[in-house]
Amino acid sequence: MLKFELHKTHGHARRGTLTLNHGTVETPVFMPVGTYGTVKGVLPRSLEEMGAQIILGNTFHLWMRPGLDVIGKFGGLHRFEGWSKPMLTDSGGFQVWSLGEMRKISEEGVKFASPVNGDKLFLTPEVSMQIQTVLNSDIVMQFDECTPYEVKGHLTTEAEARKSMELSLRWAKRSQAEFARLENPNALFGIVQGGMFENLRQESLDALVAMDLPGYAVGGVSVGEPKDEMLRIMAHTPHRLPAHKPRYLMGVGTPEDLVEGVSQGVDMFDCVMPTRNARNGHLFTRFGDLKVRNARHRDSEAPVDETCTCYTCKNFSRAYLHHLDRCGEMLGPMLASIHNLHYYVNLMREVRQALDEDRFDSWRVQFHADRARGV
Amino acid sequence: MLKFELHKTHGHARRGTLTLNHGTVETPVFMPVGTYGTVKGVLPRSLEEMGAQIILGNTFHLWMRPGLDVIGKFGGLHRFEGWSKPMLTDSGGFQVWSLGEMRKISEEGVKFASPVNGDKLFLTPEVSMQIQTVLNSDIVMQFDECTPYEVKGHLTTEAEARKSMELSLRWAKRSQAEFARLENPNALFGIVQGGMFENLRQESLDALVAMDLPGYAVGGVSVGEPKDEMLRIMAHTPHRLPAHKPRYLMGVGTPEDLVEGVSQGVDMFDCVMPTRNARNGHLFTRFGDLKVRNARHRDSEAPVDETCTCYTCKNFSRAYLHHLDRCGEMLGPMLASIHNLHYYVNLMREVRQALDEDRFDSWRVQFHADRARGV
Ligand SMILES: [Zn+2]
Ligand SMILES: [Zn+2]
Repeated sequence: MLKFELHKTHGHARRGTLTLNHGTVETPVFMPVGTYGTVKGVLPRSLEEMGAQIILGNTFHLWMRPGLDVIGKFGGLHRFEGWSKPMLTDSGGFQVWSLGEMRKISEEGVKFASPVNGDKLFLTPEVSMQIQTVLNSDIVMQFDECTPYEVKGHLTTEAEARKSMELSLRWAKRSQAEFARLENPNALFGIVQGGMFENLRQESLDALVAMDLPGYAVGGVSVGEPKDEMLRIMAHTPHRLPAHKPRYLMGVGTPEDLVEGVSQGVDMFDCVMPTRNARNGHLFTRFGDLKVRNARHRDSEAPVDETCTCYTCKNFSRAYLHHLDRCGEMLGPMLASIHNLHYYVNLMREVRQALDEDRFDSWRVQFHADRARGV
Repeated sequence: MLKFELHKTHGHARRGTLTLNHGTVETPVFMPVGTYGTVKGVLPRSLEEMGAQIILGNTFHLWMRPGLDVIGKFGGLHRFEGWSKPMLTDSGGFQVWSLGEMRKISEEGVKFASPVNGDKLFLTPEVSMQIQTVLNSDIVMQFDECTPYEVKGHLTTEAEARKSMELSLRWAKRSQAEFARLENPNALFGIVQGGMFENLRQESLDALVAMDLPGYAVGGVSVGEPKDEMLRIMAHTPHRLPAHKPRYLMGVGTPEDLVEGVSQGVDMFDCVMPTRNARNGHLFTRFGDLKVRNARHRDSEAPVDETCTCYTCKNFSRAYLHHLDRCGEMLGPMLASIHNLHYYVNLMREVRQALDEDRFDSWRVQFHADRARGV
């Protein structure tokens, strides 16, 4: 089930509440990524405490390990990984696409060798729906083909992007039929493709809207394209999607990208950046980004972000994080991940508050001024 | 300052309360090891929640990184690492001794090249006291030479052990003098050495007792000797130490070793086993040890230990820990470390309760029966 209430709009920006089988989600929302059934380096209780409302799982990875028999025994991903709030799973399409030479795409689906044990596997829209039904995620993504921005220096042509987009549309219909046949009680999202071509994006969107799915995603961005190309697609597609349904921009991005996305009408975001960058000592703060490895933090008693209320900032200094990083201690990425995720989750909390209080524009000006200040 | 109240004895076993500058410690107690200013993979809040009362820091490591200027700026280790309860630091003696070929021991101290940047360094009893004063640990250990059990297959002879023990005694006196000169407000412990020779242990003990230090440790065990040798020293030394002062058995050991140590009159233990083994998927439980990597746990819905109240056992299954281990996910060692430390901390909690309620003997019988049951 999915219910979406739109409370307020400001230009394209929207403030809503999404109700799913495992609870409600206030939007705009950032969703931490938990590829293998764990948001890397973070205890589920830390996610709850920072106010994460919904997290991601990766269908392809979880299909490989631990496998469906194990997750099925637990009645789905929620109990297996100890997370009781809503969860979204991708379709596995992006991951098999990323296998490169190791996979073969046909009308029917994608043939590939398991990177875990070499088994020959075949992922189709139907199999993706079957897997996601076992995972019992609140939001299921259609199986799609991710249109690349370029392949070995060759920019994807309009003809190639059209072929890919049309295949994804046919897979969307098969996904919808299989999702219905399985009587999956959750919500299926369609994914708009079309590469960097606005006309193709519009065709994809129109066809998906005609299918009357409960929510829509914008896919095929954050796939290596230049930032201005991404911004162009972000400006084109989200606000053209049905106003009364949730909109999810896949795999984006920096704090600035999220704020831009909100202003273009996006409700949901996911990105590995907060956790991946944390593991490299790259911290996001209100006043710009901070590289904890930098020698200037060696004896700094200041927290990462003096305005942040996360566990890390309330209890530890930049000097301590610098020390942990230098020593290669696990606690370094653990504390950095808590902070970065808290920053992203809180950024969306501030956005929601600003929208609630009709001051999104002034909030946004302050956001950019603060981020430019330097940390 | 150090105050030690002995509430109860049962044979050699003792139940006490240790009061230190940063708080009180109920004994017998297990002290988690935080070498580089972090108990590996565990948030300080998790340590507090599991009931850890005192943790260790390693003088040698902290001297190297982050260095004394940094920790000095924070007024000591407590604020630097975000731990407000008592802390014990070792003297650095064991670590420089472990450098092997890279160090040279003389009457004055130990010359060595910094493993971090190659700097020529000289660690002496005086320097060790100076460092530990900056660290501001509640319990300071004397600088000593750890007598090896064997060097390249050659068992340490009595003459060698005597020479080493006598050097440690002279270093104890220099440690005590420097500790006093520095007006360190904390408590200095002496360390009984003497290798595997009971007569030497007795001589070391007598000389240290004559110095009237506030507490004593038994060192030079858990240095590669066979288990029966360790048990022999454990049976010899602890109960001969002054009854009204705390006794610390350094670097020991398995759950069975701790229980044996308690029955021999030991009050304090430390060991890297719970955290190190956790990182290898080796879990301690009431019903024996569990290798989470084992395929039989692949789909097990059971917690690691059905009687354990730790965060890991209350929220996650063996199957999930098995999965995290297979995927090399950080959350695996994180959850395993929480459980193993909780197990050790709780083991001593049970010991204290049994002593309080005059049922240590029956508790001990049950402990061994449970551990032998299998998990
Ligand atoms: Zn923070
Ligand atoms: Zn446990």
